[in-house]
Amino acid sequence: MALHPDRLFPADPATRGVARTLYAAAASAPIVSPHGHVDAGLLLRDEPFTDPADLLVVPDHYVLRLLHAHGADLGALGRAPRGDSPGADPREIWRTFCAHWGAFAGTPVRYWTTAILADVFGTDLTPSSATADALYDELVAALARPEFRPRALFERFGIEVLATTDDPADDLADHAALRDDPEFAGRVLPTFRPDAYLDPGVPGWPARLDRLGAAAGIDTGTHAGLVAALENRRAYFAERGATATDTGPVDAWALPLRAPEAERIHAAFLASSGTPEEATAYRRHMLFELMRMASEDGLVMQLHPSVIRNHHGPTLERYGPDTGHDLPDVGAFTRPLRTALEAFGTNQRFRLVLFTVDETTFSREIAPLAGFYPSVYAGAPWWFLDTPSAIARYRGAVTDSAGFGKTSGFIDDTRAFCSIPARHDMARRMDAGFLASLVVTHQLSEEEAAAIAVDLAAPLPRRVFRLE
Amino acid sequence: MALHPDRLFPADPATRGVARTLYAAAASAPIVSPHGHVDAGLLLRDEPFTDPADLLVVPDHYVLRLLHAHGADLGALGRAPRGDSPGADPREIWRTFCAHWGAFAGTPVRYWTTAILADVFGTDLTPSSATADALYDELVAALARPEFRPRALFERFGIEVLATTDDPADDLADHAALRDDPEFAGRVLPTFRPDAYLDPGVPGWPARLDRLGAAAGIDTGTHAGLVAALENRRAYFAERGATATDTGPVDAWALPLRAPEAERIHAAFLASSGTPEEATAYRRHMLFELMRMASEDGLVMQLHPSVIRNHHGPTLERYGPDTGHDLPDVGAFTRPLRTALEAFGTNQRFRLVLFTVDETTFSREIAPLAGFYPSVYAGAPWWFLDTPSAIARYRGAVTDSAGFGKTSGFIDDTRAFCSIPARHDMARRMDAGFLASLVVTHQLSEEEAAAIAVDLAAPLPRRVFRLE
Amino acid sequence: MALHPDRLFPADPATRGVARTLYAAAASAPIVSPHGHVDAGLLLRDEPFTDPADLLVVPDHYVLRLLHAHGADLGALGRAPRGDSPGADPREIWRTFCAHWGAFAGTPVRYWTTAILADVFGTDLTPSSATADALYDELVAALARPEFRPRALFERFGIEVLATTDDPADDLADHAALRDDPEFAGRVLPTFRPDAYLDPGVPGWPARLDRLGAAAGIDTGTHAGLVAALENRRAYFAERGATATDTGPVDAWALPLRAPEAERIHAAFLASSGTPEEATAYRRHMLFELMRMASEDGLVMQLHPSVIRNHHGPTLERYGPDTGHDLPDVGAFTRPLRTALEAFGTNQRFRLVLFTVDETTFSREIAPLAGFYPSVYAGAPWWFLDTPSAIARYRGAVTDSAGFGKTSGFIDDTRAFCSIPARHDMARRMDAGFLASLVVTHQLSEEEAAAIAVDLAAPLPRRVFRLE
Repeated sequence: MALHPDRLFPADPATRGVARTLYAAAASAPIVSPHGHVDAGLLLRDEPFTDPADLLVVPDHYVLRLLHAHGADLGALGRAPRGDSPGADPREIWRTFCAHWGAFAGTPVRYWTTAILADVFGTDLTPSSATADALYDELVAALARPEFRPRALFERFGIEVLATTDDPADDLADHAALRDDPEFAGRVLPTFRPDAYLDPGVPGWPARLDRLGAAAGIDTGTHAGLVAALENRRAYFAERGATATDTGPVDAWALPLRAPEAERIHAAFLASSGTPEEATAYRRHMLFELMRMASEDGLVMQLHPSVIRNHHGPTLERYGPDTGHDLPDVGAFTRPLRTALEAFGTNQRFRLVLFTVDETTFSREIAPLAGFYPSVYAGAPWWFLDTPSAIARYRGAVTDSAGFGKTSGFIDDTRAFCSIPARHDMARRMDAGFLASLVVTHQLSEEEAAAIAVDLAAPLPRRVFRLE
Repeated sequence: MALHPDRLFPADPATRGVARTLYAAAASAPIVSPHGHVDAGLLLRDEPFTDPADLLVVPDHYVLRLLHAHGADLGALGRAPRGDSPGADPREIWRTFCAHWGAFAGTPVRYWTTAILADVFGTDLTPSSATADALYDELVAALARPEFRPRALFERFGIEVLATTDDPADDLADHAALRDDPEFAGRVLPTFRPDAYLDPGVPGWPARLDRLGAAAGIDTGTHAGLVAALENRRAYFAERGATATDTGPVDAWALPLRAPEAERIHAAFLASSGTPEEATAYRRHMLFELMRMASEDGLVMQLHPSVIRNHHGPTLERYGPDTGHDLPDVGAFTRPLRTALEAFGTNQRFRLVLFTVDETTFSREIAPLAGFYPSVYAGAPWWFLDTPSAIARYRGAVTDSAGFGKTSGFIDDTRAFCSIPARHDMARRMDAGFLASLVVTHQLSEEEAAAIAVDLAAPLPRRVFRLE
Repeated sequence: MALHPDRLFPADPATRGVARTLYAAAASAPIVSPHGHVDAGLLLRDEPFTDPADLLVVPDHYVLRLLHAHGADLGALGRAPRGDSPGADPREIWRTFCAHWGAFAGTPVRYWTTAILADVFGTDLTPSSATADALYDELVAALARPEFRPRALFERFGIEVLATTDDPADDLADHAALRDDPEFAGRVLPTFRPDAYLDPGVPGWPARLDRLGAAAGIDTGTHAGLVAALENRRAYFAERGATATDTGPVDAWALPLRAPEAERIHAAFLASSGTPEEATAYRRHMLFELMRMASEDGLVMQLHPSVIRNHHGPTLERYGPDTGHDLPDVGAFTRPLRTALEAFGTNQRFRLVLFTVDETTFSREIAPLAGFYPSVYAGAPWWFLDTPSAIARYRGAVTDSAGFGKTSGFIDDTRAFCSIPARHDMARRMDAGFLASLVVTHQLSEEEAAAIAVDLAAPLPRRVFRLE
């Protein structure tokens, strides 16, 4: 279970030697995490994690999906069927996970979990049916110790800044309490995620608008009111440290409507009479509006479109969302964003980081856009592509047109708190390996490569996400 | 012409060393071939192959297409123009092939043919204009010997099971005779391929329905009758050893129609009055029906959509199908299969193996689907992608989301009987190399990698195709 | 700044050793450049280049786009705003470029520029803010010397043939004068580029038709007249040495109209009354017509569709075209070209070289088309893909289906005269590396690989572009 110091480095000895040197320069940089799903309350309350299933299995849809693919039942994995309480025993969940350790061979889950077990917990045991119980007991014992509480881990992980993901109606009370807590020195920032308010065709839109209106103190009964409320909440977030927003629409089309048309559709959906075509038009208009707002208030806009959410209706029905069947769709940016980039693409306050789950867009769309528009950055490989091999393909595909300086730096995007250092370390290793390949093919000097490796680890994401 | 024992292994010495060890563990496993186009009658009759052109050139559209691309005439390559008898002399065909040996440099045809010549025939000659005649004579002499008859080769190749591809109306008499033949111990299984019955817009549909109806003893004049006849023939195939079906529609859309609508369209096409839109709707409904049937009878469903058949009309007109101009189309699975996977995707009897000729779907669609749905497996690289470099890209693209256990194992899909061992050996070598790269980057132990290499070679395809 | 003799070769020592040998066999071959944008007048006038900004920065949209992406103003980079004269001082432009040297790390611009500075100018200085002025002065001094005049460089670069890109109405006077110049022995050929005449919906079409009609002495007021004028000018170009045409439409659809319909649309646009749909139909008809003409006169047809031109309207408005925001679109060939390939695909005089900026089409469309149709060749990686890493992916993707003999050989496609040798050298190095990987994996003998490396460098492009 010991982690090899050369893991993920290129096999060729000369390249590996250079990669080691480059990695060494960047390895101990602090962690800048501008996009993730850890809850601020976790750090505020600082309560111990309860057990390994709760820590590593139940909340992680990467893990759940492959266990499900091998026949495991989501209910038996701790997902409560709707209307029921979760019936699963955490030790049983852990046994199921350990019994399926082989199913994860070669996957990023295997890589992260190995690193967590070895590096965070220091265990010698490799998961298997035979070791499941002993490992469970060992981890439970560790989690009860003070050094495994969230704040202690935050410090141990070397996290300089951690951004959460938050609803615009959230009062950010946990963030405020954390900031005011003299015992906690970490920087935990909110991120404005307005997805729930963009598409009037999604059930519950009027109720969400009411809640948002209440938070902003602005009537959201009109389109102008919704826009004003969102602007109000963006300012609220920015005052509380947010430097970025995050949006994951069904597609990246951003097309403005004339104001009366936007008002008409807004009213129609409040009266439950809008059509699907109108909902789409409104959503695309709202994406344009968000780009306009970003060009005015300077919040960095993260855009990650083209995921088909909840592909398997019956599983959604029974177990709710985030149960492993959000699936990649064909991606597109160059055409969908054209109108909005004509409006804001060369605006100096505007900044747009593009993420994809369709890697064909790396060399065809994202890198060429980032290679012309000052506002556009090529986001790190995301979700299904947040893996050693996809990171290698990403660097190979985007560097030609965007270099290194128009990429975003690594994004961990995780709910699994303990995997944060392993994920950032993975990215630093892969970047070191890619840079080393440029060095040994004499496209880059080792000195310049080392400077880039250092820059990618922390200074670049600080600059890109305006965290300096 | 001697085959190097390290062929296809990674160049890096350390990785190559590991690959050698992993390959050695899997190299001598029996061949499990669950998908191919060898004729059962070939083994039943066990007659000698006539000549090298007939063995290696004329029936292989991989070979024909590149010879044609370099200016060779299909008629001169032994394809009879419609209405004519084939006029080409096999020795002339062989000379043409040998003269174009250079055109195949770097292609999989070159790789297989080299292996066949060296390994199966043990010749020292490399094809060229200068050696063509001597090589022809040497091969003709070999083919006349008993050890080059189909059954002798079947045994020598170590084939444990060989699946053929058969029309649902086929009585499978050759399969029955083979099974009853006390002289032949091999396992040769039929595969149910219903493509000819799905699209009512393809000329000749009513006549084919009649033939199917006669085979099943069921009137196929109604949609319900066609469905019943197909179910009847699936049972007939299953009784005779079939464990799988095979379907290659124009696209992967599977969308059910209401019964009266299906009956209406069925009747319209029998009366020659259906529209293209109705034909498409009916075909997509039939694909949904096939998925339903598979979820009930447990025959493993192989799906390989999105090939544009017979791209060059004049060549089809003159030389018929399978003459090298079936071409890849843009692939799609996640959207087209959604409705059907909501219906059957978590059904334990249902199993669906997805193949593609569009490698963008590997990481974007196939692996994520196989990484959630227990029923879905990522099929091996197919047809244009059945090559060393595409296999490497496939493993790099699918392992992140699907691991190894949700892949299908290798599929040779060949009409070229003698290429079967070379193709399976190629896959074992490429898998050993990929696994070795995970070992030397410390993502996998050598022990676990060896176990996976062994599993991929035979136990995995046995499990996936329900051949145990 | 010294160029390493092993640059771009694979890192593995054994593979690198083979690559060195293969490269050595091809390195000194003459340069065959069948597609580029150098002006014939440059060689006719043979005037000194004025300064490094004019030579390496201002005319090169590869350079401009990434400087712009990092915040530089196009006006400050020497692009004159419309209506203004260029106000930028070349030394300031050069300083900006040198200050951004780090932004180009890992990009092809970095690679070429390094090679130009080291190899063409022999400087020891690496660009940076600190060296910008000294480097500027050094380059200015060099450019004033006779050996840095265009003709001297042409000879020093070993250019055997250089094709320009020319409007069909061009009288090719510079080409004629060059050919008649006893002082100049180089071969500089025109290329027929009819794009401006194909789409009647693009503003200015009638005026351009008039100019073309005047050049041809044929009334272009009818569709038949336009076709006749284009045929006339093709013959004019062919008489003056052209062997090829070049077309870059919005998409690759080629679909013939009936003559009366073509005439009707032609007339409508001359009367300013055509619709966008009619413009598209006419353009696609014209592409079909160009393919017919090519099948008759044997001019090699280069097709590179699917680029979104001038993505950022305000920049086009202010600075004109070719300012770095032409962006790749999704590519398609197999369906769009079907009708035309049914008509001309097996015609022996017809030759079609396909280029793409969407690398998903390499293995899915271009290689399979080139692997069947005698007329079709897989064009070298182009524009955004004209880079070491994309060349490696191209060979990996196309060789399986098309081998080497159905590829086009390298295309530099450059406006940057001094980058021609560096670009061809890059391709020879990458091809040597790819071939070496086949040798060390025992898929190809070193002798055969060396023969292919030699063939790819000059004999193959001579054959493909009918330059023999």
